[in-house]
Amino acid sequence: MESRAGPRPGGLSYCVAFSQLLGLTVVAVTGAWLGLYRGGIAWESDLQFNVHPLCMVIGLVFLQADALLVYRVFRNEAKRTTKILHGLLHGCAFVMALVGLVAVFDHHRKRGYPDLYSLHSWCGLLAFVLYVVQWLVGFSFFLFPGASFSLRTRYRPLHIFFGASIFLLSVGTALLGLKEALLFKLGTKYSTFEPEGVLANVLGLLLAGFALVVLYILTRAEWKRPPQAEEQALSMDFKTLTEGDSPGSQ
Amino acid sequence: MESRAGPRPGGLSYCVAFSQLLGLTVVAVTGAWLGLYRGGIAWESDLQFNVHPLCMVIGLVFLQADALLVYRVFRNEAKRTTKILHGLLHGCAFVMALVGLVAVFDHHRKRGYPDLYSLHSWCGLLAFVLYVVQWLVGFSFFLFPGASFSLRTRYRPLHIFFGASIFLLSVGTALLGLKEALLFKLGTKYSTFEPEGVLANVLGLLLAGFALVVLYILTRAEWKRPPQAEEQALSMDFKTLTEGDSPGSQ
Repeated sequence: MESRAGPRPGGLSYCVAFSQLLGLTVVAVTGAWLGLYRGGIAWESDLQFNVHPLCMVIGLVFLQADALLVYRVFRNEAKRTTKILHGLLHGCAFVMALVGLVAVFDHHRKRGYPDLYSLHSWCGLLAFVLYVVQWLVGFSFFLFPGASFSLRTRYRPLHIFFGASIFLLSVGTALLGLKEALLFKLGTKYSTFEPEGVLANVLGLLLAGFALVVLYILTRAEWKRPPQAEEQALSMDFKTLTEGDSPGSQ
Repeated sequence: MESRAGPRPGGLSYCVAFSQLLGLTVVAVTGAWLGLYRGGIAWESDLQFNVHPLCMVIGLVFLQADALLVYRVFRNEAKRTTKILHGLLHGCAFVMALVGLVAVFDHHRKRGYPDLYSLHSWCGLLAFVLYVVQWLVGFSFFLFPGASFSLRTRYRPLHIFFGASIFLLSVGTALLGLKEALLFKLGTKYSTFEPEGVLANVLGLLLAGFALVVLYILTRAEWKRPPQAEEQALSMDFKTLTEGDSPGSQ
């Protein structure tokens, strides 16, 4: 905590670079799996289903993770710029996820398949609803100018915890969906180490590995964003004005 | 950080009580699922397989979580006592998990089923190997008297991160196993909202909820264990002796 400003910690850059390599590999392997074993993607055919895993992995895994990492990567930029980038990346993730959801519901409707019966869909729905609520509450508290400094300070730890939790729930949902897709298609052939099964298992491990690397970057204490000069001044003013109202004293 | 000793924070007790209620519900619902829809458990029959989910949920989900929570619950007891309890709970979790693993491998061997082909088994094997390594390294560093204070201080954040990660990986593996068991037995009947499918989905959500509540207790900054008098004295002596050798200065 003693060096709260200055250059970026060395290990952070390597770890962020590794997370990006891993995240892009996850997206590429998802694409390869859909291309090699599921016929690729299209909107107007049976291939519409394949839009779902690709969009969800790009949106609620890769882009959501990058939105969380923004505060570690842009350490010395103005807080407002970083906040806007964080909100924008989450906005892009939301749009991708929405396209992915429309694809699967539309595919189910055209084929007459039932909706929302599986654990994958229950977890996915929960993750998506929490994601939207978190985005709206986060926007109102941190980007909209109405919320007080005290309210923001109290809400911030919850926002961070729920952000990481929704990301983990999204990755867990992706693993469940991958497993479902494998068992529906391969059935008992899954146990004969079919190439598709092995590739999808590797994809599952890559997804889990990506989640853990992102979580490591987010939780490492020395890598947290140092408060900028204007934030420190504001915090000092606030402390002087409202002694005993700091979040730590509750 | 200003109040590092004294009574237990009020919210912590409620949250720990809720986590225990949720954890015991997870174990009970797992038992109910196996009893109602899978014929119960036994060692010498086809029911041997059912020993696997029950033991893994008790060991690598419930007991592992409680081992992690020990440092939040026993806040004012001597560090060594808390450490021993932490190690013992992990030891019990390891024994339960071992029985669960023997059950599934033995069942596969008797029936001639192949091993270790699924994403569930890959994730599970990874979680178990990491668990054993973490226990051995943790024991050597923190309970065996050889490791220096400096080494312990440097390793502690990694031990905490990997502890939480292995717990999350274990819960993820449990969700994959639950999904696998459902799809193997129910197949397309899963989509007709069969009572077993609905109960198992609820169990999945309870598992995810338990993981998030435990993670919340572990990560909330004000709930971290305050350093005891003897640790503070040791830390001060160490700082005086080795200026510039603290983990924060690297």
